[in-house]
Amino acid sequence: MVIVMKLDSSPEQIENVNQRLQKHGFQMQTIHGVKRIVIGAVGDLESINISTLETMPGVEKVVRIMKPYKMVSREARGEDTVVQAGNVRIGGNKLAIIAGPCAVETEEQLYAAARAVKKSGATALRGGTYKPRTSPYSFQGLEEEGLRLLAAAGAETGLATVTEVIDAESMHTAEHYVDILQIGARNMQNFQLLRLAGQAKKPILLKRGLSATIEEWLMAAEYIVSSGNENVILCERGIRTFETSTRNTLDLSAVALVKTLTHLPVIADPSHATGKRELVASMSRAAVAAGADGLIIEVHPDPSAALCDGPQSLNPEEFDALMNTMRPLAAAMGRGI
Amino acid sequence: MVIVMKLDSSPEQIENVNQRLQKHGFQMQTIHGVKRIVIGAVGDLESINISTLETMPGVEKVVRIMKPYKMVSREARGEDTVVQAGNVRIGGNKLAIIAGPCAVETEEQLYAAARAVKKSGATALRGGTYKPRTSPYSFQGLEEEGLRLLAAAGAETGLATVTEVIDAESMHTAEHYVDILQIGARNMQNFQLLRLAGQAKKPILLKRGLSATIEEWLMAAEYIVSSGNENVILCERGIRTFETSTRNTLDLSAVALVKTLTHLPVIADPSHATGKRELVASMSRAAVAAGADGLIIEVHPDPSAALCDGPQSLNPEEFDALMNTMRPLAAAMGRGI
Amino acid sequence: MVIVMKLDSSPEQIENVNQRLQKHGFQMQTIHGVKRIVIGAVGDLESINISTLETMPGVEKVVRIMKPYKMVSREARGEDTVVQAGNVRIGGNKLAIIAGPCAVETEEQLYAAARAVKKSGATALRGGTYKPRTSPYSFQGLEEEGLRLLAAAGAETGLATVTEVIDAESMHTAEHYVDILQIGARNMQNFQLLRLAGQAKKPILLKRGLSATIEEWLMAAEYIVSSGNENVILCERGIRTFETSTRNTLDLSAVALVKTLTHLPVIADPSHATGKRELVASMSRAAVAAGADGLIIEVHPDPSAALCDGPQSLNPEEFDALMNTMRPLAAAMGRGI
Amino acid sequence: MVIVMKLDSSPEQIENVNQRLQKHGFQMQTIHGVKRIVIGAVGDLESINISTLETMPGVEKVVRIMKPYKMVSREARGEDTVVQAGNVRIGGNKLAIIAGPCAVETEEQLYAAARAVKKSGATALRGGTYKPRTSPYSFQGLEEEGLRLLAAAGAETGLATVTEVIDAESMHTAEHYVDILQIGARNMQNFQLLRLAGQAKKPILLKRGLSATIEEWLMAAEYIVSSGNENVILCERGIRTFETSTRNTLDLSAVALVKTLTHLPVIADPSHATGKRELVASMSRAAVAAGADGLIIEVHPDPSAALCDGPQSLNPEEFDALMNTMRPLAAAMGRGI
Repeated sequence: MVIVMKLDSSPEQIENVNQRLQKHGFQMQTIHGVKRIVIGAVGDLESINISTLETMPGVEKVVRIMKPYKMVSREARGEDTVVQAGNVRIGGNKLAIIAGPCAVETEEQLYAAARAVKKSGATALRGGTYKPRTSPYSFQGLEEEGLRLLAAAGAETGLATVTEVIDAESMHTAEHYVDILQIGARNMQNFQLLRLAGQAKKPILLKRGLSATIEEWLMAAEYIVSSGNENVILCERGIRTFETSTRNTLDLSAVALVKTLTHLPVIADPSHATGKRELVASMSRAAVAAGADGLIIEVHPDPSAALCDGPQSLNPEEFDALMNTMRPLAAAMGRGI
Repeated sequence: MVIVMKLDSSPEQIENVNQRLQKHGFQMQTIHGVKRIVIGAVGDLESINISTLETMPGVEKVVRIMKPYKMVSREARGEDTVVQAGNVRIGGNKLAIIAGPCAVETEEQLYAAARAVKKSGATALRGGTYKPRTSPYSFQGLEEEGLRLLAAAGAETGLATVTEVIDAESMHTAEHYVDILQIGARNMQNFQLLRLAGQAKKPILLKRGLSATIEEWLMAAEYIVSSGNENVILCERGIRTFETSTRNTLDLSAVALVKTLTHLPVIADPSHATGKRELVASMSRAAVAAGADGLIIEVHPDPSAALCDGPQSLNPEEFDALMNTMRPLAAAMGRGI
Repeated sequence: MVIVMKLDSSPEQIENVNQRLQKHGFQMQTIHGVKRIVIGAVGDLESINISTLETMPGVEKVVRIMKPYKMVSREARGEDTVVQAGNVRIGGNKLAIIAGPCAVETEEQLYAAARAVKKSGATALRGGTYKPRTSPYSFQGLEEEGLRLLAAAGAETGLATVTEVIDAESMHTAEHYVDILQIGARNMQNFQLLRLAGQAKKPILLKRGLSATIEEWLMAAEYIVSSGNENVILCERGIRTFETSTRNTLDLSAVALVKTLTHLPVIADPSHATGKRELVASMSRAAVAAGADGLIIEVHPDPSAALCDGPQSLNPEEFDALMNTMRPLAAAMGRGI
Repeated sequence: MVIVMKLDSSPEQIENVNQRLQKHGFQMQTIHGVKRIVIGAVGDLESINISTLETMPGVEKVVRIMKPYKMVSREARGEDTVVQAGNVRIGGNKLAIIAGPCAVETEEQLYAAARAVKKSGATALRGGTYKPRTSPYSFQGLEEEGLRLLAAAGAETGLATVTEVIDAESMHTAEHYVDILQIGARNMQNFQLLRLAGQAKKPILLKRGLSATIEEWLMAAEYIVSSGNENVILCERGIRTFETSTRNTLDLSAVALVKTLTHLPVIADPSHATGKRELVASMSRAAVAAGADGLIIEVHPDPSAALCDGPQSLNPEEFDALMNTMRPLAAAMGRGI
């Protein structure tokens, strides 16, 4: 940690800072700049509330040198984590392709989706059963009935299953039915939910928040891992920017960068990121070329009849065409599907 | 609702859209543009999933004309809502000044803060008891013990009390102790929590999410009101932008605009918005000049010893000086304190 | 400057960094952290290309401690700069109120605007004569003919005059006619224009770029001042964010913060920031309460006939009403108009 | 165009809007909604200042249906434009790979870069000669001397040449030496420069502005094309967002989307977008997978000695390795290099 003192800080103020640091077991070194005093401090950052140092008289700012996350960092573990969930392994050489409808609507719809995506090469089935909707007047999901359908469709096709959980109750229920529990973008900093996810017995798919920095996203993963669940899959799904032509802005440099910062697997969600069916195929390919370990894609047997997110859902033919272009691309990247 | 057809849409496609609309009870009118067909549709938007219209062949985009929120809109209620909470009324001519520490730490700290802010003219006492922290390694709050202290300090000083709730449990507990339940920025789209807030017996202080649009913020309020709780106070607390000199960017035009869109009271939080003690006074004054119905300000008896948010907390002398400049300003705005 | 070495940096790499710094006359001090080596370096930052230090093997990052701007900083000059332009002084106790139409359209329109704003208490007249328009198909301004009208209207009313310049030619022409030359948001990093502005004989009104950080804005002012023109007025006019309910987001904390970082005067433009007539009055008041030294407001005798920016222009009655509310507010802030 | 009237608009106000539209030759159709009147208007949008319609009493908002750009739109021209510049064709099946140093520094440096990138398969050579720098104290470029070196290095290696121009003078000079004139991100809305680019005899490489929407970017291209120069190459180079881990956020969905909106070729700049050497290769691959027609990449013979942008420059070995991974990827995308 580096403490930059104000131009006009007094010797007493500098002494006070040094004493505070000493009390917390830090070792200090003072750097006399041309105009300014800077204090380098080495010690256990967990032992001190850094931000209050900034309120001490004479202090201009405190610059943290070390990253705040630990267990999820590359420095904690050099090799890639591979998450096993049902029949699928996420983070290894093979790309994980998770596909299925935004929401589980009916048995017929779900089975049609499951069979279609399985046939085209998907490895897991997604389906929303507890839907966090921005309008209180929208369809809110089939809940446990949906979970039952999802588990059955997964069993029939051999696909691993994924559903979003939104609170303690849905998490405890879903844990019994599906292979992967998803925490959505709007709950990425719902710290109660993160802690519960740390106690869950299933892997967690953690979506990046709409306006979460990479550091905040990794800190959210740290919450889960430090609470006991090491099986976390990160998912980039677009961030909120000034550009409104796409629903969000898919941040693929985050995918590449996060792979250097953490050992956890990272996948991408081109459907929610773009909100536009016609961009899903290009962004799927771009994500894989950027180094993503997999994709999560919305596929609906009849997008124009979907109860949610129709405009961004592929139909089975479109998904099949996408998968056909994905194979040579994965091969060019030295990966399998 | 206006449906813009693609340049090359066929008569069949237009007919299909018209039939779909008709089935849902809409009345349609076709506008033949120079190059394009546009369909104006009048009817009950709740009866149809608008987004799936966009997936119909031949449709370029759908433009919604009406706002999606209803009960919280000015159109639903012309006069301003005044929320009564304990001894304080929020939304009327008098400004509500809520002040106190980021977190309840000790009895001594809380009482010192409560007495100081009361003396300087505050009308309510804030204090965090359940803290949503971005790091799992940070202080997480005193929970029910903190609530007891808060209620006692409120009773002694005659100040109404405010604390943040983060899940069902904290909400049910806090409801018994405090006058106003706060939903924080990171939970603004935690729809489960919003629904519970709609069933709570106390008014809700709803902070705007870091990257929430004004429309999403009002929809979050709609969740609460439509679930049964009409006493919602909106709070602008800064949005996330590219500018990093301040922690967030306080969006005061949102305060002014929201007052025209909703009948609910709107206050501002200059402490979290700026993250810098030296900007809190200017931004407090600016918020009131923009038309805010009140302020929520962090005050700590000794900011450099605070367990959280020290750098943005005023000490009692700074708060007192601010309140002295606030009175003539409020008067110039035709308001009291 | 602080150089953070990588976890696995070798003694040779550290030695190489030290030698490079020494060659440029820096004095170094090595801090041995728990896991990492950090080098504190003191010297003349202009003598070295800091960014290339980051490319040296073993270096993780370089943290700059000092601000990059000098002449415009508070450290260079403690007291406020007051810019004299024609009859108006900007930056002193009195607020500067600059008002007038987006574009000079006709003699009649301009004189009507000039007389109206003068009568209501404005101190300067704005009017666009060279218009940077986002569409090549829009009205582009009256150019020198407009400048002549502006100068004449200024002379008749005793108002100082302001117009935007967009290249060398318009700057050289406008310099002869008006009292203040404006550089627009889209040209804030047109460094050629900034350099020319440094050689101009008239004060410069420098608008903040749509996505310029405060540091970049002050660096743009540094360009002008370091090129020879000390008379720079900064103008906050809204930044681009994800929120689309207002045209831009007026960043009033930037106004308050910039007053602490620089001695230059700072004004605000509520018209361009909001793009909505109904928000101009509130945001004008909020800007003054935030500490702005003045305002620049669009006023048109007949906004619905304006050739540009009608939706955000006040008519003379609205402007007069605003000025009437501004006087008690300025008094409450200890300022005059 | 659709005009939405306010809830309480009067018949006179509706009549006034209709008359104004009629005067400009529009044909109108009134839609009576449940609560609101909406007017659909068909006609020549260039004949009316749409924004002033919004200021008419009773009007709530005006929704434009048609896109504001014409000549650059897909609707104006269905087939892809292929720009020929020196020996390189941009926009066809073959990817254009433009590589070279941020700035031309010396003959030795430039020739080393040119030979290296040629050998690895680049098709054009970039090199800055007029540098727009955010600090007035930074290296500003070799100007005409640099252009001479660039032209010579291009001639020797057979590479087409690209340099950035920043004003009329640099454009007129550079036109004689290089094959492609670049307009940088900070000048994307320097409309004077765009107009001059429209009269230039060389193709224009138009970078997207830091905070430019896709529509503004295409309007900037429209400026150039409508001024007479049809040879415009668009370049996505990252937008400014809240994320600070990368210098900018490379918006690859913009690349895919723009290809559907315009017939002009689109390339990507992973070097400026990320600002980090270690992300350049992944983002180059991702851009090609997203459908980009080419790349512009910074390569320097010795990045740690570079006068600018060292941290994001590849050295020749890194560039060669990247090109080796690019060939199978291009093949998988059905393209050549």
